[in-house]
Amino acid sequence: MDSHRFDASVYARRLASAASATADAGLTGLVITPGYDLRYLVGSRAQTHERLTALVLPASGDPTVVVPRLELASLKESAIAELGVAVRDWVDGDDPYRLVSAALGGAPAATAVTDSMPALHLLPLAEVLGLLPVLATDILRALRMVKEECEIDALRKAGAAIDRVHARVSEFLIPGRTEADVAADIADAIVAEGHSEVAFIIVGSGPHSADPHHGYSDRELQSGDIVVVDIGGAYGAGYHSDSTRTYSIGQPDPDVAQQYSVLQQAQRAAFEAVRPGVTAEEVDATARDVLARAGLAEAFVHRTGHGIGLSVHEEPYIVAGNDLPLTAGMAFSIEPGIYFPGHWGARIEDIVIVTEDGAEAVNHRPHELIVVPGA
Amino acid sequence: MDSHRFDASVYARRLASAASATADAGLTGLVITPGYDLRYLVGSRAQTHERLTALVLPASGDPTVVVPRLELASLKESAIAELGVAVRDWVDGDDPYRLVSAALGGAPAATAVTDSMPALHLLPLAEVLGLLPVLATDILRALRMVKEECEIDALRKAGAAIDRVHARVSEFLIPGRTEADVAADIADAIVAEGHSEVAFIIVGSGPHSADPHHGYSDRELQSGDIVVVDIGGAYGAGYHSDSTRTYSIGQPDPDVAQQYSVLQQAQRAAFEAVRPGVTAEEVDATARDVLARAGLAEAFVHRTGHGIGLSVHEEPYIVAGNDLPLTAGMAFSIEPGIYFPGHWGARIEDIVIVTEDGAEAVNHRPHELIVVPGA
Repeated sequence: MDSHRFDASVYARRLASAASATADAGLTGLVITPGYDLRYLVGSRAQTHERLTALVLPASGDPTVVVPRLELASLKESAIAELGVAVRDWVDGDDPYRLVSAALGGAPAATAVTDSMPALHLLPLAEVLGLLPVLATDILRALRMVKEECEIDALRKAGAAIDRVHARVSEFLIPGRTEADVAADIADAIVAEGHSEVAFIIVGSGPHSADPHHGYSDRELQSGDIVVVDIGGAYGAGYHSDSTRTYSIGQPDPDVAQQYSVLQQAQRAAFEAVRPGVTAEEVDATARDVLARAGLAEAFVHRTGHGIGLSVHEEPYIVAGNDLPLTAGMAFSIEPGIYFPGHWGARIEDIVIVTEDGAEAVNHRPHELIVVPGA
Repeated sequence: MDSHRFDASVYARRLASAASATADAGLTGLVITPGYDLRYLVGSRAQTHERLTALVLPASGDPTVVVPRLELASLKESAIAELGVAVRDWVDGDDPYRLVSAALGGAPAATAVTDSMPALHLLPLAEVLGLLPVLATDILRALRMVKEECEIDALRKAGAAIDRVHARVSEFLIPGRTEADVAADIADAIVAEGHSEVAFIIVGSGPHSADPHHGYSDRELQSGDIVVVDIGGAYGAGYHSDSTRTYSIGQPDPDVAQQYSVLQQAQRAAFEAVRPGVTAEEVDATARDVLARAGLAEAFVHRTGHGIGLSVHEEPYIVAGNDLPLTAGMAFSIEPGIYFPGHWGARIEDIVIVTEDGAEAVNHRPHELIVVPGA
């Protein structure tokens, strides 16, 4: 088994479930170009976009992969060979869209396509199929949103790895160093602690901590700064970590400490609200209510969380208006934040997994504001 | 001026030319989501895909950018503010596709879309517009393929930067080190020599040199290896370098040296064939003929070159069947190679720009097989 994917039996089950959901939707088949859905269905990390690579999964019948002959090697690491998926390679001059159509039993075919399929391929495919495809999102949502045990295990290991990085962040936060210096140390640590790649790094210091979309800059850390550190990477079969802790360089002002403690209560309350049957928006409202009761409603400017897996942001979104009932196996962030533009901000984020009767966090670092020495 | 883009006047001219080409094609407008076309037209490096960001350029009338309010900052570095492009921001709950339609004067609208637009946006957009878009490739091709002076200057600087990296590669190639070790040194050097990012690194040693699609591996370099090093990065406003040199660890076999000298002649002949009016396929045939006369036709398994600019691979492709006549300002690679599977391979690649009466190479490192010390 290649460590970048699971055992082939995992993908065999997924293909069968996806074909069944496609049939239930009354469609002829799925057409999946490189991206998260392809990685989910066959464990392929192929990133070929210029020439068509596509998994064609009929609602009934055998799947086929259409692939440029030059890119055959890009499928090597996937489970395609072990699964016995037919490979139909093509060379410049062939029409790969006709190969897709043939693998679906001929046009016209009602298909669903992966949401990342580029116009470059979607428009000629629609012409050959004779029907405009629909998005495969609805068909794959239920599958991708509820994690299997092997995925939960991967998320736990990713969580432990990013916890080890946060355990080292305090030593990186030294007044006079820039946010970019700290980010470089964090990038090294993300890989050193076992991730296969860095996904994102936010080091928001001083007034930058009040901008939830800040990355990192050449700003130098100063005594008295609050620093938001939001980091993650891909682990093992491609499952992501994502955890935020907030640091204080020197002792924080009493006001900051008091408002931070409310944020900590909000994060805890939202975590405790999670269990099967509760809706995504109820979890969001729980965090929001704690902050609102302390007069901090206006300071919490984003959703409470997002699903996570092969993609850093995926369903379920923990946001007002999402009445999706949670079920065991769903994985998402709980990350309320408070932001005071121009001054300071804070966020606490753990990834949690819905269990039969509650939730399990995959991150275990303390939630307190972490005080590091000032100058 | 932000160093990641040109002066706003460059983009003003491009927008006017693109609108004019759109009108000539009988279309209502262009819809451009983040990617190379957006960077080309307004200097934006935005990479937002989940929520719709789109430049809407009517064939006549003023352009608009539709952007999620949360992502407004992603446009900061672009020329959009200086150009006076209208910004129409939206929040969750709004229908961004209707905003695109409104910016085009209302549905139905015959549009062309950037080839990277994902199905996630293309399918709902097609529904609102009432007509299936076409690809904008044909409309933007003539613009993007012929480089302006500022682009040629960027390609020259990128070429000089990658030449400085190749000047250092010999010292990285030490028997016992792995291809991955060498690639890590090259990645550092690509950035240290002025690129903003690494685009790709191939270190193909020994039998791996015979695989033109090899990346790098944990194979240890050995005395007697031939090593193909094909590297590039993005520079300045996003223009790419791409240059290949072939190295020999210890003195090469006389057969290898002789066949390599034919490859060198093929690369030189193709370069000398370039001038306005010559077709892309004639340049390809020139390289191929030199190799064929030496009995090496079968060893040259790929096209002679590809265009380069904001994208590493773009038009014009220097390949059999492409009867496009070259014109001054086109930029592309000339990179013949010879491959003997299981044994060794070699490639020589420079980026060249078509001038009024010939071609200018932006790479200037010697073309000879570069011999480095063995163990």
